[in-house]
Amino acid sequence: MRTLPGMKLLALHGPNLQLLGRREPDVYGRATLDDINNQLRAAAAALGGVELDFLQSNDEGALITAIGEAAGRYDGILINPAAYTHTSVGLRDALKAAGLPAVEIHLSNTAAREEFRHRSLTAPVCVGTVAGFGADSYRLALEGLVRYIRSGRPDA
Amino acid sequence: MRTLPGMKLLALHGPNLQLLGRREPDVYGRATLDDINNQLRAAAAALGGVELDFLQSNDEGALITAIGEAAGRYDGILINPAAYTHTSVGLRDALKAAGLPAVEIHLSNTAAREEFRHRSLTAPVCVGTVAGFGADSYRLALEGLVRYIRSGRPDA
Amino acid sequence: MRTLPGMKLLALHGPNLQLLGRREPDVYGRATLDDINNQLRAAAAALGGVELDFLQSNDEGALITAIGEAAGRYDGILINPAAYTHTSVGLRDALKAAGLPAVEIHLSNTAAREEFRHRSLTAPVCVGTVAGFGADSYRLALEGLVRYIRSGRPDA
Amino acid sequence: MRTLPGMKLLALHGPNLQLLGRREPDVYGRATLDDINNQLRAAAAALGGVELDFLQSNDEGALITAIGEAAGRYDGILINPAAYTHTSVGLRDALKAAGLPAVEIHLSNTAAREEFRHRSLTAPVCVGTVAGFGADSYRLALEGLVRYIRSGRPDA
Amino acid sequence: MRTLPGMKLLALHGPNLQLLGRREPDVYGRATLDDINNQLRAAAAALGGVELDFLQSNDEGALITAIGEAAGRYDGILINPAAYTHTSVGLRDALKAAGLPAVEIHLSNTAAREEFRHRSLTAPVCVGTVAGFGADSYRLALEGLVRYIRSGRPDA
Amino acid sequence: MRTLPGMKLLALHGPNLQLLGRREPDVYGRATLDDINNQLRAAAAALGGVELDFLQSNDEGALITAIGEAAGRYDGILINPAAYTHTSVGLRDALKAAGLPAVEIHLSNTAAREEFRHRSLTAPVCVGTVAGFGADSYRLALEGLVRYIRSGRPDA
Amino acid sequence: MRTLPGMKLLALHGPNLQLLGRREPDVYGRATLDDINNQLRAAAAALGGVELDFLQSNDEGALITAIGEAAGRYDGILINPAAYTHTSVGLRDALKAAGLPAVEIHLSNTAAREEFRHRSLTAPVCVGTVAGFGADSYRLALEGLVRYIRSGRPDA
Amino acid sequence: MRTLPGMKLLALHGPNLQLLGRREPDVYGRATLDDINNQLRAAAAALGGVELDFLQSNDEGALITAIGEAAGRYDGILINPAAYTHTSVGLRDALKAAGLPAVEIHLSNTAAREEFRHRSLTAPVCVGTVAGFGADSYRLALEGLVRYIRSGRPDA
Amino acid sequence: MRTLPGMKLLALHGPNLQLLGRREPDVYGRATLDDINNQLRAAAAALGGVELDFLQSNDEGALITAIGEAAGRYDGILINPAAYTHTSVGLRDALKAAGLPAVEIHLSNTAAREEFRHRSLTAPVCVGTVAGFGADSYRLALEGLVRYIRSGRPDA
Amino acid sequence: MRTLPGMKLLALHGPNLQLLGRREPDVYGRATLDDINNQLRAAAAALGGVELDFLQSNDEGALITAIGEAAGRYDGILINPAAYTHTSVGLRDALKAAGLPAVEIHLSNTAAREEFRHRSLTAPVCVGTVAGFGADSYRLALEGLVRYIRSGRPDA
Amino acid sequence: MRTLPGMKLLALHGPNLQLLGRREPDVYGRATLDDINNQLRAAAAALGGVELDFLQSNDEGALITAIGEAAGRYDGILINPAAYTHTSVGLRDALKAAGLPAVEIHLSNTAAREEFRHRSLTAPVCVGTVAGFGADSYRLALEGLVRYIRSGRPDA
Amino acid sequence: MRTLPGMKLLALHGPNLQLLGRREPDVYGRATLDDINNQLRAAAAALGGVELDFLQSNDEGALITAIGEAAGRYDGILINPAAYTHTSVGLRDALKAAGLPAVEIHLSNTAAREEFRHRSLTAPVCVGTVAGFGADSYRLALEGLVRYIRSGRPDA
Repeated sequence: MRTLPGMKLLALHGPNLQLLGRREPDVYGRATLDDINNQLRAAAAALGGVELDFLQSNDEGALITAIGEAAGRYDGILINPAAYTHTSVGLRDALKAAGLPAVEIHLSNTAAREEFRHRSLTAPVCVGTVAGFGADSYRLALEGLVRYIRSGRPDA
Repeated sequence: MRTLPGMKLLALHGPNLQLLGRREPDVYGRATLDDINNQLRAAAAALGGVELDFLQSNDEGALITAIGEAAGRYDGILINPAAYTHTSVGLRDALKAAGLPAVEIHLSNTAAREEFRHRSLTAPVCVGTVAGFGADSYRLALEGLVRYIRSGRPDA
Repeated sequence: MRTLPGMKLLALHGPNLQLLGRREPDVYGRATLDDINNQLRAAAAALGGVELDFLQSNDEGALITAIGEAAGRYDGILINPAAYTHTSVGLRDALKAAGLPAVEIHLSNTAAREEFRHRSLTAPVCVGTVAGFGADSYRLALEGLVRYIRSGRPDA
Repeated sequence: MRTLPGMKLLALHGPNLQLLGRREPDVYGRATLDDINNQLRAAAAALGGVELDFLQSNDEGALITAIGEAAGRYDGILINPAAYTHTSVGLRDALKAAGLPAVEIHLSNTAAREEFRHRSLTAPVCVGTVAGFGADSYRLALEGLVRYIRSGRPDA
Repeated sequence: MRTLPGMKLLALHGPNLQLLGRREPDVYGRATLDDINNQLRAAAAALGGVELDFLQSNDEGALITAIGEAAGRYDGILINPAAYTHTSVGLRDALKAAGLPAVEIHLSNTAAREEFRHRSLTAPVCVGTVAGFGADSYRLALEGLVRYIRSGRPDA
Repeated sequence: MRTLPGMKLLALHGPNLQLLGRREPDVYGRATLDDINNQLRAAAAALGGVELDFLQSNDEGALITAIGEAAGRYDGILINPAAYTHTSVGLRDALKAAGLPAVEIHLSNTAAREEFRHRSLTAPVCVGTVAGFGADSYRLALEGLVRYIRSGRPDA
Repeated sequence: MRTLPGMKLLALHGPNLQLLGRREPDVYGRATLDDINNQLRAAAAALGGVELDFLQSNDEGALITAIGEAAGRYDGILINPAAYTHTSVGLRDALKAAGLPAVEIHLSNTAAREEFRHRSLTAPVCVGTVAGFGADSYRLALEGLVRYIRSGRPDA
Repeated sequence: MRTLPGMKLLALHGPNLQLLGRREPDVYGRATLDDINNQLRAAAAALGGVELDFLQSNDEGALITAIGEAAGRYDGILINPAAYTHTSVGLRDALKAAGLPAVEIHLSNTAAREEFRHRSLTAPVCVGTVAGFGADSYRLALEGLVRYIRSGRPDA
Repeated sequence: MRTLPGMKLLALHGPNLQLLGRREPDVYGRATLDDINNQLRAAAAALGGVELDFLQSNDEGALITAIGEAAGRYDGILINPAAYTHTSVGLRDALKAAGLPAVEIHLSNTAAREEFRHRSLTAPVCVGTVAGFGADSYRLALEGLVRYIRSGRPDA
Repeated sequence: MRTLPGMKLLALHGPNLQLLGRREPDVYGRATLDDINNQLRAAAAALGGVELDFLQSNDEGALITAIGEAAGRYDGILINPAAYTHTSVGLRDALKAAGLPAVEIHLSNTAAREEFRHRSLTAPVCVGTVAGFGADSYRLALEGLVRYIRSGRPDA
Repeated sequence: MRTLPGMKLLALHGPNLQLLGRREPDVYGRATLDDINNQLRAAAAALGGVELDFLQSNDEGALITAIGEAAGRYDGILINPAAYTHTSVGLRDALKAAGLPAVEIHLSNTAAREEFRHRSLTAPVCVGTVAGFGADSYRLALEGLVRYIRSGRPDA
Repeated sequence: MRTLPGMKLLALHGPNLQLLGRREPDVYGRATLDDINNQLRAAAAALGGVELDFLQSNDEGALITAIGEAAGRYDGILINPAAYTHTSVGLRDALKAAGLPAVEIHLSNTAAREEFRHRSLTAPVCVGTVAGFGADSYRLALEGLVRYIRSGRPDA
């Protein structure tokens, strides 16, 4: 196992996720995006030596830009592309170009929702996917990604 | 009928609508976006106690953000998603999350245009649609939305 | 603006609309078809010089015949083709042949219903569509059609 | 079991069924529509207290009208929509609006015929379907519907 | 060659064809339906011993009924199903049940029009099709059908 | 009518039907599979001279094997293929090879459920289908099959 | 009517038509291609002043070349593209470029055959189609084309 | 948080998973199914009070049976349906009928493989999915499921 | 050419093939599965040093298991997956994992049968396919596979 | 078994096969088309009394012509239609019209290649198919076809 | 030829193109976006009197805005829409509204990549496309566009 | 840069291109194929040391043959497959087998034409595509191909 002093990950939250906890709490839970980020930070600390940066944006372009700048600065990406999962060739290209291991995260079980949510343009260029566990999807994805990188398979 | 002192609506104009009146006037008419907004403001005044805010943006993200901030500040939304009608899962999610009654507006009769304009991702989460009346589509939608809200069915 | 002394419109109601108000009132409201026709007549009067004739039929053929006889006798058509919206090439051909401006009306928001209701065979030969406002869809369509005709664009 | 003194059912026969027994007897059998109706009447009598009215029509509109008038006058509907099974949104809407339990009947095994006969627009709003038993399909459907109503599940 | 003293054909005209000659004459020509029927009658006379009956209807059901009554009374059918060509399983079933040779006729070249006009539900149960020659399509179809029957191939 | 002393039928129950009555009773009713089999046995006795064997299996292969061994030992088959209805070419081939009249049975109205339940691979090789009457579907299918065989049409 | 002294038509026969009369005579009749050409020549003579040239080829390229050379030398084209009807964009382009009125001919009723024969790539650039009358399809097409040209509508 | 003394989970491994570690180790890793089960058992112990039973089967029917017997005996299900993910309506029905929270697990990132692996029939009736982390997918799914159940959302 | 003392092949027969020779002999011939196996054994002997084991099963799982155990014990696989050809991702995965050269065999010409038989899930992971020669398909496949292995291309 | 003194077969090679052995030898092997033809001739001699003629052409029309002339001169056809397999309705029609037993041959395993190579227009009118064995596909097809003809099933 | 002193073009680079030269150089070459812009500027100078402005953006909205402002300020547009090629109705509408000749540019040969890259929403409203020549695609597009404008065909 | 004394290219023109300049000059321009070839020859001379051979053919087979003979004799191919672009698997196979860099050329912007022209079977095996610049498409393609070869990337 490769030791990774200073492993640094980028956590990206896609469109409408700024509303978490404030809207439809019985559907999406009462955790706000800050709560999720704090939970992630705590979980990262518990994993030892894992640092996290966060970005939420409703802009497809801003997310593409952030991924484009991630190579060389981060060891991996946690991304909930939300609505862009199903429509953004741009995010897919960005993730592929970045050459970093990424994990796709969904709060809800997208397979149980509308037909157009069953296709993910971004998942094929990720290491894997965690979906359906609500806020806990993030924590599972973090653990999975950290173990993936530490096991020496850092390239998607 | 519920009286609504201070009913406030948000009118959103999607991509390329900043060009109205300046480009292809024989197709889209000579009314500029300002003209349309002024007509809407006048019509709102005529309906009594209806206030309007306006936003035009070519950015999918900016529109999503505006809708996300609308809950609690507005009573309803008038939206011409233009090109994003057919491609934006993000706008759909935003409208659904906002929990406000919204009306989808089109200047042209989209059913009579290219095949890819026949599917609307946003209409299913709106109260209804008005399409094909040019600038007048906005005014009809305004009347319809105000009556809808005043009749006590404020949730989409 | 062209003055239209004696503007006359034909309002057509398609299959099952004879049941309005008597069946599933929580879905379709308590207004009967007579109520809607009376509201339309009142609204037409308020618009000044607009006369309306009404026909409800469950027969595709009877609707086609009525449209075929409308040219030269009416200035425009309000039509809720109901179920025939999605299956009748015959109504489409009739509307196109009539050469009169027509508006397609739906009580419900068809975009939010079954997949087979998302395609309209008749909308492409109409001026536009108003859908989702319940009985109010008719009134909005009437206003839109009258303004459309008065603005001098009488041909679909 | 709920006793139903005076249970009354409406039996509807769709297009081309007026030809039964006279055309292609080796395919559809030698029973005429009158024979089928008589068999149904006899079977209804045997079931005790079940009365039947019959209507055959080649008109989609006439069938829609009959279903529209059935609520309040009948306890259930037996319907062989024949060709309209695959094309009539209008019959579907009528059956749904009627709010009566209905059974869809086919003489032939439609699943073994042309592709376009594999989709039924009406079956989803019925209690169930009986197909492939020739004239006997009607009798089985009658028994099924009567038991369904008597067991206290009268709403489709 | 079988001699056919008193060969009798039924000519059926589908929806909107009552408008021929009065509407869009530059598209459909100036011949009315009466003109076409007269031309057909003259052509039938010229062929010797061919009698024609005519029916135009906008009702799918009326056309189905007429075909159902044709067996035993006519030797063949000329039919322009117009809009019902593309949507009527009922007409197809009627033509098949009638067991008479039929020819499908179109004024326009349907292959050059909208996608939904490219599929014919009725053509597969006809002897053949004549399309695109305007009013002359009828005359060609008549000649073709008469020669087909006289050549001793009277069953479709 | 052919008398059939010792008519013997095989009743096959597909996957998950062992759970009947124990799971989701408000959906599938409280009758267990044993109850249904007992009802069928009673109904068979009432029909006179009809014997029944039963097999429930979750194994596609076991069902195929049972059908393969049925020819020569049974006069017909009652089968509720459950989930295999929509996916098993093997069951279809087995039913076709057996050369026995079979009836497809469904407790629920599959036409009203998910899209993938609308296609039956097995129905085209059966005599017919009874669906939507709950446990009563079996009894109706039994009656239909016995009458079908006794009427002298024993081959599917 | 425009008189056309020396009207000259090109009759093109596509792949496998060299086999006519020698293969499957009960399907395609006993007339050879020479017989058909002779019948056409006789019919042309009967029409007065109509001359015909003939080409049969199994080569898509040879047919394209012939059509390419037809402009300026012929007044119209009779073409049975046979198998190339459904696959040749090249023939379609050639017919369109030629700018001559053409009629598509089929011996059999292609609508009653395999699914892939229901689409014609060439029909949309022809005046019309005659199909299903066996060898007689050619004669009807000839009459239709000559009348079409003589009526002064020489451009497809 | 509800305490769950003696929480018991069923871990199901679908077809071909008996080969793990012995075949294509550079693709699927060197861990055998026993290794994975041991890792799961250790992880369950670490989570405190979580017991696991294991079943691997290549039989669709055996897996359906196991799920059918799980209700009342287990608190949740971990399932890697492998190839049956994409073809088994039976597993879907079994999982739905069981009424237990289940998590779908994939070793590989199915979204990056053949088109036919992009559709999961079972995921819509699960709580969520973990895919692409190799053997680690199981451990993440276990953690996710245990936390899901302990948080008091025990029904899928 | 590599000499293969003791080359050993596994011949697998899928669902319903146990019925061969006993059912529909005019379709599938009179050879039983034993006859085919004996012919294969004789042909293998004639090829010199080729040994064969046989397994017929109606169980998808049993076939998957047999393939899973074949690696290291056999040099290649002859498989007639029958109905599972078109539906079994599991067999495909098993064949791929086995890493042995396999040949897909069909008695009938599947390309000439129902649409759903035109797609093979297993063929893409085989060396090749032999179809349409009845029992002789097996013998040809055996020869092909033996020559393939002896020529030194033993990996699929 | 029918003795066939002087059985004569036609071996047809489609487009690009003239390049065999000279291009991409690691893909298609080093055998030239002449090598294959010589192997076939030798194999035919070994089968006793089987004569072969050969034709390679890149022209769809030339292949159609050759098949058209084969009836009466040959007892069967070996054909590798190569690219035309997937696009030529003309070859299909020619093979069907010829009424000779034919076998479709492919060097590669087309099922493992691009999607558009999975559909064969010609296979449905052949006796069967041999694919994936490289040059050996020809030899197997020859053996299969000779045995097929000698067994007395000479018609496709 | 129209002389164009001061012809001015706008070169637009879509999402992820800011990464050129820094990421995957063996795929996309070592030229950075600046290199490409410099090459374009040099080529423009060589063409004489052609000025270029450049914009790269990952934002769909920013690109739409730039095109909206281009009319009146530029004579034409060079655009590599990258990922937005396949998803942006907004860019298509903007290009159409601008009324300027535009050329679509791709570094890679999109036709040889994933299925979803085969459809371009923007190409239909451009003059033409240059794809597959790497950085050289830009230079060819520039030459093509300049010659197109200078030849006097300035409108797309 | 690799110097290429005597670089030789083959320019292929597909079906109907022999008509250039003579037919529909307002659509395709007034340049004949000879004009285009002369322009290409001049441009090749200007590029220095580039020789060109030309072939126009309406025969798919002749084009396939020419490409098959090109390897070893030419350094690259310019090809306007015209109608064969969309239908010819044979040309695709030929281009792939040739192993020479090729550029696909279109006079018109095929993306703006009929749906069936949006798919190119040949583009995926070419270096790239130039479309929409009329005769100038050829010149741009020539420059692109020469630079591509000279830059040392001679294999498609």
